[in-house]
Amino acid sequence: MSIDAIQDIYPEDYAWCYGCGRLNKEGLHFKTIWQGDKTITVYTPRPEHTAIPGFVYGGLIGSLIDCHGTGSASMALHRKNGHEIGDGTEPPRFVTASLHVDFMKPTPHGIPLKAIGTVEEIHPKKFKIRTEVFAHNDCCAKGEVIAAVMPAAFKQKSEV
Amino acid sequence: MSIDAIQDIYPEDYAWCYGCGRLNKEGLHFKTIWQGDKTITVYTPRPEHTAIPGFVYGGLIGSLIDCHGTGSASMALHRKNGHEIGDGTEPPRFVTASLHVDFMKPTPHGIPLKAIGTVEEIHPKKFKIRTEVFAHNDCCAKGEVIAAVMPAAFKQKSEV
Repeated sequence: MSIDAIQDIYPEDYAWCYGCGRLNKEGLHFKTIWQGDKTITVYTPRPEHTAIPGFVYGGLIGSLIDCHGTGSASMALHRKNGHEIGDGTEPPRFVTASLHVDFMKPTPHGIPLKAIGTVEEIHPKKFKIRTEVFAHNDCCAKGEVIAAVMPAAFKQKSEV
Repeated sequence: MSIDAIQDIYPEDYAWCYGCGRLNKEGLHFKTIWQGDKTITVYTPRPEHTAIPGFVYGGLIGSLIDCHGTGSASMALHRKNGHEIGDGTEPPRFVTASLHVDFMKPTPHGIPLKAIGTVEEIHPKKFKIRTEVFAHNDCCAKGEVIAAVMPAAFKQKSEV
């Protein structure tokens, strides 16, 4: 099996995220891949992820944009460092400094959502990711994440 | 049992939100109450709601701020309309127009989080809610939600 998603190669200690950690059994398991110079996460919300019946819960869309953002930043810095997903090196892990979501229209439930991201380096350890979330061909939400390389405060706690 | 939370009196058709709908069995069941002129939502994240072990998932914090925002807006307009929670009238239901979260510091997992909101009317049908999320006495995240009275597009779909 080829490995395409950045979340498949996060170091084990950092693979427990509820949104995108492959080791979190109850989690959502978002997976982010490259498509040219864009980053892509496709996710079909669970039946319970409703705002009202027929529409997707906004907090789920925010979660998608959040993990898509940190994943995209990890991919961008990994690539900048001369690596590609699957070459055997571990990528840098990012955390979210800020999350912004504009909900453009009600998002229909029951179909896959596609997040498409554009990554911009704004500091050697900080990236801005602009994301559009599509249902079919409708852009239902636009998001912006500022993602920063995981600070030492996180790492210390996780080693306890 | 006295009814204190706005989510306990949302109309049944609009009580299915994954974040705060009392009828969504798999949902998070956020409950928002008045405390003076502030709005309060207390929530203890589930074991699986981790970013990395020991810290709360940012998307969960975003979800908390989101539903706390729409709930607070509903409470504010309900009160402005001359009603109080528990007087037998149904409150207006809001949706999120935008969500912004600044993550101030890693949020410890395993304890209750307390969201404290300040509501400001910015239009007769639109409210801004500024929220601070505390773990113990630490403000771990600050959020801002623009909430708007639920548009007809939602209602039409939910009646299908």
